[in-house]
This record gives sequence, structure tokens and C-alpha cells, in this order.
Amino acid sequence: MIIDIHGHYTTEPAQLHAFRDKQLASLADPARKPSPDLGISDEELVKSVQPQLKLQRDRGSDLTIFSPRASGMGHHVGNEAIGHAWSRASNDLIHRVCTLLPDNFAAVGQLPQFPGAPIENCIPELERIVRDCGFVGVNLNPDPSGGYWKVPPLTDRYWYPIYEKLVELEVPAMIHVTGSCNPAVHFTGAHYINGDTTAFMQLLQGDLFRDFPALKFVIPHGGGAVPFHWGRYRGIAQDMKKPLLGEHLLKNVFFDTCVYHLPGMECMAKVIPVDNILFASELLGAVKGIDPETGHHYDDTKRYIDQLKTLSDADRQKIFEGNARRVYPRLDAQIKARGKAGKAKATA
Amino acid sequence: MIIDIHGHYTTEPAQLHAFRDKQLASLADPARKPSPDLGISDEELVKSVQPQLKLQRDRGSDLTIFSPRASGMGHHVGNEAIGHAWSRASNDLIHRVCTLLPDNFAAVGQLPQFPGAPIENCIPELERIVRDCGFVGVNLNPDPSGGYWKVPPLTDRYWYPIYEKLVELEVPAMIHVTGSCNPAVHFTGAHYINGDTTAFMQLLQGDLFRDFPALKFVIPHGGGAVPFHWGRYRGIAQDMKKPLLGEHLLKNVFFDTCVYHLPGMECMAKVIPVDNILFASELLGAVKGIDPETGHHYDDTKRYIDQLKTLSDADRQKIFEGNARRVYPRLDAQIKARGKAGKAKATA
Repeated sequence: MIIDIHGHYTTEPAQLHAFRDKQLASLADPARKPSPDLGISDEELVKSVQPQLKLQRDRGSDLTIFSPRASGMGHHVGNEAIGHAWSRASNDLIHRVCTLLPDNFAAVGQLPQFPGAPIENCIPELERIVRDCGFVGVNLNPDPSGGYWKVPPLTDRYWYPIYEKLVELEVPAMIHVTGSCNPAVHFTGAHYINGDTTAFMQLLQGDLFRDFPALKFVIPHGGGAVPFHWGRYRGIAQDMKKPLLGEHLLKNVFFDTCVYHLPGMECMAKVIPVDNILFASELLGAVKGIDPETGHHYDDTKRYIDQLKTLSDADRQKIFEGNARRVYPRLDAQIKARGKAGKAKATA
Repeated sequence: MIIDIHGHYTTEPAQLHAFRDKQLASLADPARKPSPDLGISDEELVKSVQPQLKLQRDRGSDLTIFSPRASGMGHHVGNEAIGHAWSRASNDLIHRVCTLLPDNFAAVGQLPQFPGAPIENCIPELERIVRDCGFVGVNLNPDPSGGYWKVPPLTDRYWYPIYEKLVELEVPAMIHVTGSCNPAVHFTGAHYINGDTTAFMQLLQGDLFRDFPALKFVIPHGGGAVPFHWGRYRGIAQDMKKPLLGEHLLKNVFFDTCVYHLPGMECMAKVIPVDNILFASELLGAVKGIDPETGHHYDDTKRYIDQLKTLSDADRQKIFEGNARRVYPRLDAQIKARGKAGKAKATA
């Protein structure tokens, strides 16, 4: 079984965008407030994810961990009440897609974060999507100010209430920023990667996992700059008298494989332990084209992993399935409940 | 000849720090304003750079391109007038070190940038250090707001006056942030790397080098996340209908080798053309320790380059000397004037 842990619903029906337009229009004219019913049929939903299903078939993956469009979360946009309604609408669509196609998609949600608002305010939506809707994880935005980083670091006690709930519910958080409202910072080309790098460095500086040994974070986009600068991070940790990174962070921090060329993936595989690497391709995401150097899509990341000669079959099983089922225990339970234990069962 | 293009004066005499303290104290009490004479003797200056000279000998480099401590530039601190005096004092010390030890150090300056102030205000100091003091380059801070990115991107016309002067003077700019005043963003572990990544993405989005074909930028710290995500950047450029990166950026953008482990350096060497890689080790910089995995200092970057099997002798000559003399033409002229043409002459 091959699990892609990082897919976003970037093929949403137009009604969702119309809903968002009306929401934001209501800031200026309350009469434009949208109805909570988006008017999207099940047929439309299934049709909207045909591109993802085709890519699963073409590229040989089985199941995608699916969350709302990351740049669409827009935590810095509007006000907190609008953000709550927006998260609920976005998560409800994910829930419907995953309910309609449970063998292909597992749900991850967005949180109604708002800059300056207490993180506790996100707990009801987190409980709803996990307990009532079967979500297996959540995206946590380390910079709800959208590219200005006007928010305490992830190690600050500001965040502790949500960590307590994540641990209680046994769901990991992918640390994922949303779009950038900063004209100096491009979203997919700078803010996403900087978000990953900054979050990792915040965790390195602190001792968060001493307080939350069961908390699990996935850092997407291959960990931003982290594997490329692994020596720098090992050295900075050493200068700060922190434990070795394996002990300090790697029981709790995992990296996905959204790195769009072989040399980058090789670098990652050389420095990040195989137990900490989770297959992902960010479909349909940041980069849509075909690499003229290979003739294949940049984001067909499975091809790069297939080319890594140093990996054993057991290593590949971990990257493609085993690690995901360990980091997302609710996903593992869902797969087992459906009687599709996959290769993990066979090799257990 | 081996040229290290990225060294900072991080072993400044205590008098420079005392000067800065008095400067900033004068914001609260003008009576504490320091005398412009720092009271540092030539002997003290020569003594202060003995650690750098020892590392040159131990590691086999000949000449270091030397600039003020990057985190000390502090463009966001105080007010613009204080920043001007601070840049002048910092550059003057660099000038004295490089005059005392011209075979070991070549000077690069800091600019008195201030958030919100016109970039034109930096031109007098740039002209002074290049024309009067023989500086061969300058550090340009893409985020003088110190981690909040409240500044137009590098492609904005805001920056054009300084670019015109850089081209006129034939000096390259290293794109280097200063310290971070943002508690979410660690300086050497996040802000430096994010600065590199963000600057590269700004350049990718724009068409700056159509307006300034002779402008040259060096992106330090191995280009931040860029080589690791080279496929992502190639793909984003393609989605944006930009030319191939070699045509679009690599006639003007160069990367240093401040990457502190072999797998990172291998990744860089696989994707960045050898003509765009300049040897550097960020002495004495971000990471001071010895890597327990190798028994050598993390920042002894020459060792990693020496281990790259794919490089020819001609490639190594470019990385260690030729590219630096091409990107920093005033350095080349200085070396030639002193009759030390080095290997470039022998192989020319």
C-alpha cells in the first residue's frame, strides 16, 4: 500500500470559491453573507477529484491524506468569526470527499486560527473533525499572520492547549503555513519553505517534546531547508548544548518527501533517518509542469524514491506506508477496520 | 590561490561593542554619545584576527573576503543617523584590517540601510568605501526590518538607485540579512536561510536582470533552501513562463558554499553550475563546533568540496579562485596589482 500523506483539495468546485467571496464581501455588506449550504452534490464532489484519482492510478499510490487548499486557509484574512465558518465549510467538504471515497482519501483538517486569538478557540473544530468526522490529522499554521511572523514560536505556551488536545486525540499536526499577504514573500516559493525551516529551528531552540513526548509534527516540503543544512542544524544544536537531533527532535518530528528533483531527495535520504521520512507529493500543488530534464512531472516524487539505491525493501515500506500508519494512528485504525491492512500487516 | 568569499569580523575588539552601546544609550541620553575615535591600535586589530589567520593556515585558504559581523549590522535598530555612524565605524575597522593584512583580507562593507528610508541614502557610504577605501563588494540586506519583511522585494524600483551604483562601481552585492528582532525567527538558524530563499524567489518572480544585466548578486549559505529545492524552483519558473533558470538568473546570481555537511554540498554541486559556485565558509560564523561524525569542524567547507569526486581540476579552480575573481573584479585587480595572480594566471 502506498500512502501519500500530503494532498490538498485544489480542485474544489466553484461553489466553494463563491462561498468565500460572499463571506469576505459580507465584511463590507452584511447582506451578502452566504448560506451555509454550498449546494454541491455528491456527484460534483466525486467528479472534482478525478484528477487526483487519475494521478493515484498513473503513479501507483493508493491513498492520499487530503486537506483543504493550504493557501486558501487564509488565517490572516477577515475576522475570527469568518475564519471559523470558513474552516467548517472547508473541512466539511473534505469530510464528504473522504466519506464518498474512503479507499482513496483520508481526511486532514484546517483550524480556525486567527492572529492574536487564543489557540483554545480552535479546539471545538478540532474535536468536531476528529471525533465526529473521522479526521486523522490537522494542519497547524506556525504563522497565522501570513508572512510577517507576528506570532509566538511553536515552543511558546500560547500553543500548549492545542498540543494537549492533539495528544489526547492521537492526531499529528502537519506544520503548514497558508498563503502570504506579504508582497516580499511568495507563497509556494518562499513562505512555505521558510515556514518549514523556521518551525524546525523553533523546535530545535526549545524543549517542547519534554512537555509533550507523544506530540507528533510532520514538516512538509522535505523539511524546507533543513536536510540541505543538516550539518548547520546539528552544529547549532551542539553550540546550544542541546541533545543530538535524533534524541532532541526526531522522535516527534517527521519530514515528507515533497522535493521535486532526485539530487534533493538523495540529500534527504542521506541525512534524515528512514523512520522519519513519509512519502508525499503535494498533489495537486505547487508545481504542475513536466521537467524537461526527465520528461516526467516534477511532483511525481515516487520516481525519485524509486531511484534511491541505498534503500532496502523494508526502508521503502516504511517511507511509503509504515511510517504514515505509525504517525497517523487513526488512519491505521481506519485501514484496519476496512480490512485493508496492506503491506504493514504482511510484514508485521 | 584559495579565496574564501564569506568571512565576517566576529572577533572585533571590545571597543567596537562599547562604541555601539554608547551609540544606542545616546537614544535615551544624548550625553552618552560616543567619540568617533574607537581607540583601537593597529596591534590590537592584527591580534584580533589571529583566529582567522590560523584557520586560513590550518585549512589551506589564502585570502578571505571580510565584512562586518552580519548580525551586528542591525539595520532595524535605533534610527537612520545612528545607522550611518555605525556603518561608517564598522566599515572603517574592516578597511584598517584589510590595509594592515592585504594578502589575507579583502574588504566588503555594510550599508546604512534603514527600514522605510530611501535606499539612495546608502550611496555616499557605498561610494566612500569603494572609491576611497578599496572595498570589493558590499552586503545588501533584503529585509532591513529584521525578520518581519516589511520592505519591497528586491525587484522593486525602490532598490534601483543602489543597483545603478553597484553596476557603475563594478561591485557585487552579497544578499545578507542581519540579526532578527522577531522572536519567532532565529537569526543563523532561520532568518539567514529564509533570507537567501526569499531573495532568490523574489528574483525568480521578476525580471530584474533585464534592467541590470551587469548586476551581480551572491546568495550566501549555499543559497538557503534553493539547491535542495532546485526542481521546485525550475518548476515554478516554468509555471510562471519564465526562461530556464540558467538564462533567467544564473548569469547574475551566484551561490557560496556555506553548507556544513557533505550530502548538502553534493546536492549543490549536482544542480548548481560550477561557474556559479564560490568557495566560502562563513568564518567565524554560525557554527563553531566539531562534527562528531567526521571529527572536523562543521564549517571547514573546503573538506567537503575536496571530497566531491565529480569535479575536475578546472572546476575546483573556478570554485576556489576563478569565479571569485570574475564576480569581484575589483578583487581581481587588487591581486594583479600586488603581483599575485595565483593559479588563475597559471591556467589562463
